[in-house]
Amino acid sequence: MTDYRAPLEEIRFALETAGGLSEWTSIPAFEEAGEDLVSAILEEAGKLAGEVIAPTNVVGDQVGAKLTDKGVVSPDAFKPMHQAYVEGGWSTLSAKEELGGQGLPSTLSTAVDEMVTSANMAYSLLPMLTSGAIEAIDAHGTDEQRHMYLPKMITGEWSGAMNLTEPSAGSDVGALRAKAEKQADGTYLISGQKIFITWGDHDLAENVIHLVLARLPDAPAGTKGISMFLVPKVHVNADGSLGEQNDVKCVSIEHKLGIHASPTCVMSFGDSGKCVGYIVGEENRGMANMFTMMNHARISVGLEGVAIAERAYQHAASYALERVQSAAIGAKTRESVTIINHPDVRRMLLTMRATAEAARAIIYRNVWALDRAHALDDTEARAAAQGEADLLTPISKAYSTDIGVEAASLGIQVYGGMGFVEETGVAQYYRDARIAPIYEGTNGIQALDLVGRKLNADGGAHWRALIAEMRGFAAGEGGDYAADLTPAVDALDDAANTLFENGFERIVDTAAAATPYLRLFGTVLGAYMLSRQATEAERRLAAGEGNPAFLKAKVSTAAFYREQILPSAVALLPSIKAGARHITDLAEDDFLRH
Amino acid sequence: MTDYRAPLEEIRFALETAGGLSEWTSIPAFEEAGEDLVSAILEEAGKLAGEVIAPTNVVGDQVGAKLTDKGVVSPDAFKPMHQAYVEGGWSTLSAKEELGGQGLPSTLSTAVDEMVTSANMAYSLLPMLTSGAIEAIDAHGTDEQRHMYLPKMITGEWSGAMNLTEPSAGSDVGALRAKAEKQADGTYLISGQKIFITWGDHDLAENVIHLVLARLPDAPAGTKGISMFLVPKVHVNADGSLGEQNDVKCVSIEHKLGIHASPTCVMSFGDSGKCVGYIVGEENRGMANMFTMMNHARISVGLEGVAIAERAYQHAASYALERVQSAAIGAKTRESVTIINHPDVRRMLLTMRATAEAARAIIYRNVWALDRAHALDDTEARAAAQGEADLLTPISKAYSTDIGVEAASLGIQVYGGMGFVEETGVAQYYRDARIAPIYEGTNGIQALDLVGRKLNADGGAHWRALIAEMRGFAAGEGGDYAADLTPAVDALDDAANTLFENGFERIVDTAAAATPYLRLFGTVLGAYMLSRQATEAERRLAAGEGNPAFLKAKVSTAAFYREQILPSAVALLPSIKAGARHITDLAEDDFLRH
Repeated sequence: MTDYRAPLEEIRFALETAGGLSEWTSIPAFEEAGEDLVSAILEEAGKLAGEVIAPTNVVGDQVGAKLTDKGVVSPDAFKPMHQAYVEGGWSTLSAKEELGGQGLPSTLSTAVDEMVTSANMAYSLLPMLTSGAIEAIDAHGTDEQRHMYLPKMITGEWSGAMNLTEPSAGSDVGALRAKAEKQADGTYLISGQKIFITWGDHDLAENVIHLVLARLPDAPAGTKGISMFLVPKVHVNADGSLGEQNDVKCVSIEHKLGIHASPTCVMSFGDSGKCVGYIVGEENRGMANMFTMMNHARISVGLEGVAIAERAYQHAASYALERVQSAAIGAKTRESVTIINHPDVRRMLLTMRATAEAARAIIYRNVWALDRAHALDDTEARAAAQGEADLLTPISKAYSTDIGVEAASLGIQVYGGMGFVEETGVAQYYRDARIAPIYEGTNGIQALDLVGRKLNADGGAHWRALIAEMRGFAAGEGGDYAADLTPAVDALDDAANTLFENGFERIVDTAAAATPYLRLFGTVLGAYMLSRQATEAERRLAAGEGNPAFLKAKVSTAAFYREQILPSAVALLPSIKAGARHITDLAEDDFLRH
Repeated sequence: MTDYRAPLEEIRFALETAGGLSEWTSIPAFEEAGEDLVSAILEEAGKLAGEVIAPTNVVGDQVGAKLTDKGVVSPDAFKPMHQAYVEGGWSTLSAKEELGGQGLPSTLSTAVDEMVTSANMAYSLLPMLTSGAIEAIDAHGTDEQRHMYLPKMITGEWSGAMNLTEPSAGSDVGALRAKAEKQADGTYLISGQKIFITWGDHDLAENVIHLVLARLPDAPAGTKGISMFLVPKVHVNADGSLGEQNDVKCVSIEHKLGIHASPTCVMSFGDSGKCVGYIVGEENRGMANMFTMMNHARISVGLEGVAIAERAYQHAASYALERVQSAAIGAKTRESVTIINHPDVRRMLLTMRATAEAARAIIYRNVWALDRAHALDDTEARAAAQGEADLLTPISKAYSTDIGVEAASLGIQVYGGMGFVEETGVAQYYRDARIAPIYEGTNGIQALDLVGRKLNADGGAHWRALIAEMRGFAAGEGGDYAADLTPAVDALDDAANTLFENGFERIVDTAAAATPYLRLFGTVLGAYMLSRQATEAERRLAAGEGNPAFLKAKVSTAAFYREQILPSAVALLPSIKAGARHITDLAEDDFLRH
């Protein structure tokens, strides 16, 4: 009952309606991503996630990662699981073929990643961080670096870790103090401590390739003085074999609320003055390098929200179908029924399901835009796709992780008292989910990104295009839903224009409105994406295609979302337009109690 | 920085504006509750909570309650703390004078309980459950029982525990199976297992007085066949001294998400066939007896939401005043500032603060109505007060515990990555808070109670009276806030009338709308209560009375609530009126994934 089952029907449908699946083979880079291959990959990934990875989730939580004399040790159950993941080639799906990857769309690997993340979120961070490091090295490393490190990282034999944060440099990366000094041989001596380094050390891979942000002695202040270095845990010889240990080690790991199996390390570089690193890209360009992979990393964290909401939903739905308690409302007998018969339980389950499906559609669309931005031939089409991907990224990250926490909380509520007891496993989702709104840029930072950079990019072209698309849908094929969608899009349009026109003079008002604006945007977009799915489901139903039960459920879930979830978000408009006045008027000291 | 400081200024103001403080001495039963005594009690309670109890919160979480051969053992730090609580007479405040209590208003003891709960929620359940047992025995026990058990329970030397739940009888108490058989001497032999028994066993008191719901052999099915029994852990001799152990024991305790120091016991009664109990009240009247104390117990759980929101708020606010990160939005320099300068951080803090203050005002009002229902002379006034107390109870319970979880989650978000690390202590609030929406009737049950029993009580007189009161305020002294309040009250009125008119024919629609209706009710009532506080704050400011900084903050917090929190709740109206159609149309099997 508590096992995770990959929602293949839903994932497939989301790929078709939001992830551009039918267009994949029309793009030369993805011509191999045809029907048969895609189906086989999704099917096998579902098995891996459900049968191999999902059973490790609870033991990962209970045993956790441990720091020993020999470094960080993972739970025993993780070793065969990771081996199966590596040997199955799961980490190679969307990597470049020249480096040993399969060159498939990231949208497809995102669907696979979702299943892996639902199955074991703590574990999923290992391949996720490795992907990020691969992307950065691929984009900015030398050919020698690329060929020395990437093939083994792509197979998963080696992992990657991102070393940004320091105690005084969290959201403000520019405040970091780690040092790099150039040596005569062109390498750099790295020194400093980094905190919150996910999978910074572990025993699942032979080597950990650290990307470390540090400052050169003469670097300018702030983000313009940051450089990126590649620091292998174990040095790699010219022939590819492993050499000596580098002077880098994990000195402690955090005791956290959740994702216990994901070691969150304090990493120390150069304690003995012998930590050798190699610059990636140019000096003082480290921050720009990070931006290259920021979209992907942020979307991946957003995906955690979807993945945890999905698993929490499944777990709660199974329980609601089994647990017998109280008579049905309005029933003539006092016979007890399964709690799925109680409308309020259904409301909770449908909220979890509808928000997860909305966020999934947003994320798949976002990654598909990224895929197009990389793979299309036409420059203008690429730029439009990149603009859309950039716009959607903070929404993918923040909206999805917020609903992830909310869904996990509802999952406990469906379970009642048993949900508060750790042995049922639903409390773990609530604990695990809570990190996703925080890392990879807090959701507050995402909201500021949305109302700042993204609102103003290309004169507002990208949000205007999206709003126009939604209006076109409501005026056309989505006409049945126009009564719900049109006022929602109007509100979003009004909010976007208000903040856009605020400009620099009212920047504090804009910043104060950022979070409700993101919530409004995400919810309206979710309603639109689900409504598009509903029109497609209705078309298939009318044409006698597909599974009618699934398609009817899509129509129904979209209707639930528009009716029960959308209005409260639309009502954020006056709060957004009100500006900062009631947010800034309390004096600092008045926040303290007496 | 992490210590709790009783918000005495705010609590005092809430007692004055929502808890009827100025009227206390005008009621004969409370004539001693004058200015000096009340001030002294609040002041001393603040010291106890902040200095003695609050420091035990983290150790309680880390060490937790443990089951040993000798029963359940509490953390060492709890013993002197509990002793201080008992010796200070803190549990006697609102208990009857004839039984050793002080006869003060429950509204006053609620304010004290809030501080104790903020200081250590897990511990606070011990006096809270004891209070519930006292109330039941006092209302339904014989004089002999009252004099044998209550004095020592009131002082806190003995504790009380409520034994209702069984594996198949949670929300549906009527399904319970524990047995009671009458003996020749008039006592009963009790047998059966109970689960989720809070503080069912422990080493802080000499005796635990269990109230156990069980069935007689010939009892009717359902709730009409339940009787209540008093089952002491240790038998009490006629002279009041302790005698033999009774045949009752804790056989295991749950490993829970939070409130680790509160033992959640599986209790076994009559394993050796020798568990002797004494009936409380009449046979088959156990459920009705439970209802006597249900208001108090539910309000007390609601208070946990306020208490945890308050502590999470204080903890997050202290951090925001210290943590330096990033330049201020729109500032000319790039100098980093404390994060309280960032509007989005303020938004989070103000949301926590405003919802906590709204819920506090609702709860104090609710308890004050209960006090009046018990202590007023006039029958009609008593009935009106009881009707108001009954109406407000599900709102106090569910609205407050929902915002408690939301506030605890925001508290982590303010802390960022450090919030996810257990050592900062803010994750504990998130874990502890999560039980409150579940126990003492899930929030779904509360919502059903609100749209069922409470909506229909006395033909709807009580909610109509409250709506009329809010309209009167908006048309009179609260005229400045009418633009916000009137549409909100209109929406509540519309929703209440719609559900009222649904009647039995549309009972499923009503049940489906219960949760958003409760949220709408709670939020509109919260906006009204805060607005009333704001008018009083403005009056005092104009008159030069009180602390201007505090009073201005009250005005500002109320404005924030009306502007930033109220509109989304008001927008629940269409969802409420939509009924069940999109909640009931999904087939049961379609909740499962394929």
